[in-house]
Amino acid sequence: MRMFYDDYSEGAHPAVLEALVSHNGGQELGYGLDRQSRLAARRIAAQVGRDCEVHLLAGGTQANLTCLGAFLRPHEGVIAAQSAHINVHETGAVEATGHRILAVAAPSGKLTPAQLDSVLGEHGDEHMPRPAGVFVAEATELGSVYTLDELRALCAHAHHEGLWVYMDGARLAQALAALDARLEGIAASGVDAFFAGGTKNGALCGEAVVLINPELRRDFRYHMKQRGALLAKGRVLGIQFARLFDADDLWYRLGRQANAAAARLARGLTECGVPPLPGEANQVFVELPNDAVERLGREAGFHVWSRGPESSLIRLVCSWATDDAAIDDLLDGVGRALAPGANPA
Amino acid sequence: MRMFYDDYSEGAHPAVLEALVSHNGGQELGYGLDRQSRLAARRIAAQVGRDCEVHLLAGGTQANLTCLGAFLRPHEGVIAAQSAHINVHETGAVEATGHRILAVAAPSGKLTPAQLDSVLGEHGDEHMPRPAGVFVAEATELGSVYTLDELRALCAHAHHEGLWVYMDGARLAQALAALDARLEGIAASGVDAFFAGGTKNGALCGEAVVLINPELRRDFRYHMKQRGALLAKGRVLGIQFARLFDADDLWYRLGRQANAAAARLARGLTECGVPPLPGEANQVFVELPNDAVERLGREAGFHVWSRGPESSLIRLVCSWATDDAAIDDLLDGVGRALAPGANPA
Amino acid sequence: MRMFYDDYSEGAHPAVLEALVSHNGGQELGYGLDRQSRLAARRIAAQVGRDCEVHLLAGGTQANLTCLGAFLRPHEGVIAAQSAHINVHETGAVEATGHRILAVAAPSGKLTPAQLDSVLGEHGDEHMPRPAGVFVAEATELGSVYTLDELRALCAHAHHEGLWVYMDGARLAQALAALDARLEGIAASGVDAFFAGGTKNGALCGEAVVLINPELRRDFRYHMKQRGALLAKGRVLGIQFARLFDADDLWYRLGRQANAAAARLARGLTECGVPPLPGEANQVFVELPNDAVERLGREAGFHVWSRGPESSLIRLVCSWATDDAAIDDLLDGVGRALAPGANPA
Amino acid sequence: MRMFYDDYSEGAHPAVLEALVSHNGGQELGYGLDRQSRLAARRIAAQVGRDCEVHLLAGGTQANLTCLGAFLRPHEGVIAAQSAHINVHETGAVEATGHRILAVAAPSGKLTPAQLDSVLGEHGDEHMPRPAGVFVAEATELGSVYTLDELRALCAHAHHEGLWVYMDGARLAQALAALDARLEGIAASGVDAFFAGGTKNGALCGEAVVLINPELRRDFRYHMKQRGALLAKGRVLGIQFARLFDADDLWYRLGRQANAAAARLARGLTECGVPPLPGEANQVFVELPNDAVERLGREAGFHVWSRGPESSLIRLVCSWATDDAAIDDLLDGVGRALAPGANPA
Repeated sequence: MRMFYDDYSEGAHPAVLEALVSHNGGQELGYGLDRQSRLAARRIAAQVGRDCEVHLLAGGTQANLTCLGAFLRPHEGVIAAQSAHINVHETGAVEATGHRILAVAAPSGKLTPAQLDSVLGEHGDEHMPRPAGVFVAEATELGSVYTLDELRALCAHAHHEGLWVYMDGARLAQALAALDARLEGIAASGVDAFFAGGTKNGALCGEAVVLINPELRRDFRYHMKQRGALLAKGRVLGIQFARLFDADDLWYRLGRQANAAAARLARGLTECGVPPLPGEANQVFVELPNDAVERLGREAGFHVWSRGPESSLIRLVCSWATDDAAIDDLLDGVGRALAPGANPA
Repeated sequence: MRMFYDDYSEGAHPAVLEALVSHNGGQELGYGLDRQSRLAARRIAAQVGRDCEVHLLAGGTQANLTCLGAFLRPHEGVIAAQSAHINVHETGAVEATGHRILAVAAPSGKLTPAQLDSVLGEHGDEHMPRPAGVFVAEATELGSVYTLDELRALCAHAHHEGLWVYMDGARLAQALAALDARLEGIAASGVDAFFAGGTKNGALCGEAVVLINPELRRDFRYHMKQRGALLAKGRVLGIQFARLFDADDLWYRLGRQANAAAARLARGLTECGVPPLPGEANQVFVELPNDAVERLGREAGFHVWSRGPESSLIRLVCSWATDDAAIDDLLDGVGRALAPGANPA
Repeated sequence: MRMFYDDYSEGAHPAVLEALVSHNGGQELGYGLDRQSRLAARRIAAQVGRDCEVHLLAGGTQANLTCLGAFLRPHEGVIAAQSAHINVHETGAVEATGHRILAVAAPSGKLTPAQLDSVLGEHGDEHMPRPAGVFVAEATELGSVYTLDELRALCAHAHHEGLWVYMDGARLAQALAALDARLEGIAASGVDAFFAGGTKNGALCGEAVVLINPELRRDFRYHMKQRGALLAKGRVLGIQFARLFDADDLWYRLGRQANAAAARLARGLTECGVPPLPGEANQVFVELPNDAVERLGREAGFHVWSRGPESSLIRLVCSWATDDAAIDDLLDGVGRALAPGANPA
Repeated sequence: MRMFYDDYSEGAHPAVLEALVSHNGGQELGYGLDRQSRLAARRIAAQVGRDCEVHLLAGGTQANLTCLGAFLRPHEGVIAAQSAHINVHETGAVEATGHRILAVAAPSGKLTPAQLDSVLGEHGDEHMPRPAGVFVAEATELGSVYTLDELRALCAHAHHEGLWVYMDGARLAQALAALDARLEGIAASGVDAFFAGGTKNGALCGEAVVLINPELRRDFRYHMKQRGALLAKGRVLGIQFARLFDADDLWYRLGRQANAAAARLARGLTECGVPPLPGEANQVFVELPNDAVERLGREAGFHVWSRGPESSLIRLVCSWATDDAAIDDLLDGVGRALAPGANPA
């Protein structure tokens, strides 16, 4: 049975792999100066629709630590939801660059202007780190998606308070599918910098960092090199992103595919009598009795998000590669797990 | 005309690319726990021939900063040749993890036991960083290669003084070809940790870190994750290294091919009347009159290593992908550059 | 009117000042190797009653960042109460050395074994920092004091889980006065390292770091020097601590004086009809109506700890220098503030 | 016999000690906001003669790491002479804040515009740290003193190249005595920031950091707090600097006294037949036969600066506290050491 652990269990999308094969020959300049990397940057910048710099990095933690380490001065911290990936699952990578994450409880995974005010209100003098920027994930780590209105309001408030906004877009394609929007909408919302995720959306590896705010662009290639984020054969990233952002909108389409799979899964779960939490992109969270979780775990792969005494919340992640058969299999498994007597495995 | 800038201008070796294609399908666990990564680790460990841990990282600067950042305590520094990559071309990546590089003038690019003593003699108390380890590159950044005897002597002396030895093996396959040796020989020389380079030897990206000294292994995956060096789709590295270290010795063979190309180039240069510096692996350094450098630069790609008032030293790098035709072309170019009247372009 | 902002508004205790004057003449070795520093270290070690190293540093933030920066490896974090000084009022000094503070809500300011378990339970793999140690303050930042039994239980549990325990003793003399204990009791509780505060207990500056666990002692003077914490004229700290720990128990006595002043203040507040929160050492927290806070603020100096819509919690700190007259003045002020009509100022 | 190890073996100058005693009473705000600290800042700023910020820190390493850590962005390095204190005797404190020191061989201890050019010429792209500023010591670690003309030329060139200049003034009073100049001259030379040393010129501890370039002032108190450099009882520094910079020019006078003692010592050595190296401030370097060094070492304290096979260079440091008798004693000792038979001890 297919695993639903995450959206990076598959290899590359076939079209991306094909591009890697067809552009493998010949010589190219190193360190991201090759023709495919420059083509990818132009294509992404065209989607962004405004003056910006585009840099290709290999992974999300690397993108986050390189960007935040570059943007922050030593005494500055970054505001983030407690559930933010940088605060939970990156082994203190931001702190290792010298900075505190100013974490706020945000049950939905999304930050609000009021939450920024609350952090700012508590950080008033030189005995505390100075809040300098805001980290958001789109989609969030809890499966929710900021609307463009929410993003605009958050960015406007942040800017008013002298804060920049940085967006972790590991699942940005899926969020945009949920919003029926494109990169231009993200840029127009006011974010100062973001990355468009490749790893979770068809690439073998790679995240495209987009720097809009000129203040944040300064010497970015130095920061990349210093953090080990300037790949010698930059073409491996360039080829993938040039393909994902080619005229056929592959990157956007894969995001929609992932969401469609998640929606199908959510409908099936509801039909099984276990409706999932409201979700917007490609992550499905559903509460199951503990014995059903245990039975399902014997035949399917997924993460238990939080354990309760009687039931637990599990996370089921779909991707562009999740096909109908896989979902049907999983739903059958859920049925068996919920009513083991009625549905002998 | 083919470029001789470096050994990472080409894509992947066809066999590596084919492996990437054939193992693209299906789901795998993330973060280096996939089957191909584990296979690669087993194959490399078998070559090493002793108890060790193997971890796959994306690039050389990343490997260096992750390893040295993990091995050193805050007040410790690492001894290295002034020409060491970490001291010259990694944008202060080691310092960014908080440590000083204790650089020693080493004209050949190779460190000697006496040079370790000289650093140790100057670093005697708590007003100076404590030397804790030694960084060597094999082959060195200047094209030279430590013999196994030299390595044994250096490691024995380092260990006697309480220092570990870490080897940057970005061009280790080429060095081993020069030495007619294998990974087992490196491990037997006493190095505590090293990496076997993929990027410069047939892979799209990737370096295989081998940790032999148990003290240096502790929690290494934490360090990888914190430095952004734990790729979500670890399979992209696993597949490549499993292929490079498959039964046909591809990794070793590509090293030999690179050296053979360099040897052919060196012979040709000597025949042109411009014998290169003695070189041992795949880098060729040759002194040319400045006007010849300028003329050659118009039709070939290479780095000028050091400029003099009348002549300059240029670096010509061969790789597994450098074919005879490319070398002949270059040699023709050199001929034209040296005697422009006699050989009209 | 005397200020009750904190316990570092006064100069040195007269006996400490006199010692500074009488030992000012003559030459001494620098960097803490002078005779008075060595005498202070011997006297403190004698009080500790077991094998240990003693180092004198200038201030509390410096002691905390030097110790924690020395004890932690890059991927490790330290568990602390959310109210811990390192988490609230030291401008991210610990993060600036590269480490996350793993903060736990602890309403009393004191950590429990169960809270350690809760952090450990959430930090299970290499995607999160590894908890390596525990930070406690004695007395805590909220005015509470760990009993020796509580400390023993916490240390035993921490050690069982492989964690060391480090104690910020900025107000340790006051805590010991509350416990009717001495340094030996602290050491016997199992803490691996702590500092005995001088700045808040009679010195002009200075904290005496005591390293008990041999693992944590390694190369400590290197760490001090690297963090700028090795004063050239170390005698300025040595003289003060040699005097505080002289045979007349000055350090202990000043702690008792501070607590006695706080107790007198607490009694007076109760008599005024505004009983303070239960407090154990030299900090008094009392809730007053907001208009009374405002009136009192016009004639006395203190910090508002938390503001409510109708009343607020203020902090009144006593020290060895707070005399009866100052307390009586303040209580008169409280009386006037509470009943402005009845007691015209 | 008096030691000539350094200029921090004595306690405070009596007038400074007296000021500490007379301002010990009463309460003051903490963290450098007290009246004496503000008075000291005003007095120093008046000497500087232009718009600036003044901050008082406890020691030189602390001042250097706080300033350079604040001024540099992560990928930037600071140019310094190889003999610079930050490069030799501060245990990698600058690297611990994440930055490389770009060290240049400077036999005199003084940097020249041409040396800046040489570093800039070698650091041209993102594979190397970006040179951002220049560290100079006045007087230098080798006893030499930049003339005001040299400083002006260096600063002008640095500014032209986009570099700031930071001056370690641990022995600035002695340098100014040698130059017959005052702080105003230093500021007028163009340095962007410097500190005026107290520890080596009459204080118990303390260095006064002066920030002239507005770019470098930003949030400096945050950096101080984060590095543990904001003393709770800031008055201990304020009192000393207010006294040193009082109307009687104590700080300048003590610098002149130290130099006068060194000049007397130099003359005496010349008369003994061992003329010292040309020196300008309060450090005297003299070459002695090794047996004389050994004999002298039995009765006097000094550092051997560099050892040769037959003779060695020793350093003899004078301070405001070095009286004629001490110098005569030392010269007698030198005489005995040079001709042991003729002058029985």
